[in-house]
Amino acid sequence: MTDIVVLDHKIHGLSAADYAAALRETLPEYDIALARTPAEKAELLETATVATGYQISEAQVESADSLSLFICTFAGTGHLPLETLEANGVTVENASGVHGPNIAEQVLGNVLTFVRRLDQGWRQEQRSSWNHYQAGELKGSTATVVGQGPIGRTIVDRLNAFDVTTVGVRYTPSKGGPADEVIGFEDDAIHDALARTDHLVLACPLTELTAELVDEEALLLLPTHATLVNVARGEIVDTDALVDALRTNKIRGAALDVTAPEPLPADSPLWELENCHITPHNAGHTPKYWDRCAEIVETAVAEL
Amino acid sequence: MTDIVVLDHKIHGLSAADYAAALRETLPEYDIALARTPAEKAELLETATVATGYQISEAQVESADSLSLFICTFAGTGHLPLETLEANGVTVENASGVHGPNIAEQVLGNVLTFVRRLDQGWRQEQRSSWNHYQAGELKGSTATVVGQGPIGRTIVDRLNAFDVTTVGVRYTPSKGGPADEVIGFEDDAIHDALARTDHLVLACPLTELTAELVDEEALLLLPTHATLVNVARGEIVDTDALVDALRTNKIRGAALDVTAPEPLPADSPLWELENCHITPHNAGHTPKYWDRCAEIVETAVAEL
Repeated sequence: MTDIVVLDHKIHGLSAADYAAALRETLPEYDIALARTPAEKAELLETATVATGYQISEAQVESADSLSLFICTFAGTGHLPLETLEANGVTVENASGVHGPNIAEQVLGNVLTFVRRLDQGWRQEQRSSWNHYQAGELKGSTATVVGQGPIGRTIVDRLNAFDVTTVGVRYTPSKGGPADEVIGFEDDAIHDALARTDHLVLACPLTELTAELVDEEALLLLPTHATLVNVARGEIVDTDALVDALRTNKIRGAALDVTAPEPLPADSPLWELENCHITPHNAGHTPKYWDRCAEIVETAVAEL
Repeated sequence: MTDIVVLDHKIHGLSAADYAAALRETLPEYDIALARTPAEKAELLETATVATGYQISEAQVESADSLSLFICTFAGTGHLPLETLEANGVTVENASGVHGPNIAEQVLGNVLTFVRRLDQGWRQEQRSSWNHYQAGELKGSTATVVGQGPIGRTIVDRLNAFDVTTVGVRYTPSKGGPADEVIGFEDDAIHDALARTDHLVLACPLTELTAELVDEEALLLLPTHATLVNVARGEIVDTDALVDALRTNKIRGAALDVTAPEPLPADSPLWELENCHITPHNAGHTPKYWDRCAEIVETAVAEL
């Protein structure tokens, strides 16, 4: 009798065997099995009440007679057969709280690199050059964080600690949050925020409202010293407009963990721009990924 | 009649004319003069009650009959004729509170670069490589900050905001501070702290006690994944031992804003080490340098 079945998958280069081990540590009173092959998945899903993994197919849901809870190890659930899950009475939870600390750390690392011009330091290092240069200060600046879910709110928390004035952008501003000011997506509110933003951080889902939110107009509204950090989705930025803005110093710089498309093609002009820093969609990685997923499972199981 | 004379000097590439302007804005009721040449300095010091700058000579002190306060625009005052100043009844203030925010930002930028492996990102960027790599997390780690003056305490404040366990090292631990734990310089206490330190930050003055504090033994005590950030003085680290530790992965990496000697010679092996990041002693620079000095003058003058 298996209580919780882990559907084998790989995420951020992590192994689901380690996830099963983390679950066994967190929930010692439960029987936890790792299903590696399609046959093992079929067999174990027959009796499991809880399943967790990246994906579960319609056929798997239909045949999992005891299943009442599926915990997706990914923040998004758009890839799941949600209607089938609902029709079969399976509650779906996601791992949206998993990434807050590490993504916020990646954002602050990028912002501080721009502010303190650590990138100028790396370039000088390549030619063994000890030559003083001036740097800026984060304290007293204004940062706008688009998206105020668990990730966006953690980013705001960290920025607040540096005495930054924070503006949060969310669909329902009345929900508030840790930002000094919370606004909605109306043009007037966004335009006003961009015009006084030193650091713009994108941490929102990709929707019709956010697609190409950072377009040519938005990039012109930002001050010339402004920086952009995108840890959301590449499609939220108009890439051509961004390349132009970076080339002609309409903004100071951009740090992109996500691009459109991914992987970023080797001939993309973004690679060559000195004021653009690219990381390969790994802000979401944390060595504590499975531990945090196990905590989410623990909470969800307790509510069953 | 001049109340406050600014002795012309350059610091971090900033002009003292801007300092005089900042003082005039902060203290509009005072007569503030910028003394540029030796002749102007001699003339203006004859009547001024307050002088501020990087240096004042014995002869200048002797001839400044009305002088009661000298505010040094540098954190250290070891270069001043302190005995002559005291003998002539001149109080000396320094600018030790000036650098807290910007140095703390530089430290956090360096620590987060190591933690989130942004340096691996820069290297991949050079060859247009979109290849996922795993990164670490600052949350939950332990950082030891040597020196708990205004700079060290601000560094601890910022680290605390990332849910880091902080250990402060200071001469008089009973003075406390914002760190979770404050220890002294006794061998046993330092050794115990180093053995559990993920990030070691040096932000203390150079004294007999701190010279080569980070020697071969200390580098062996640190875990192999530990990082070192030095924003204090190069002489606090045994450079040869550090080069060996970085070459053989006895520690993970080092970010040095200060070196011994300075400038770091072009043939130093530190330049070539991929796990060593060098900035040219500019952590102390902030665009708000003169504004903060003016605030220190404002406070000091109010106490006259």
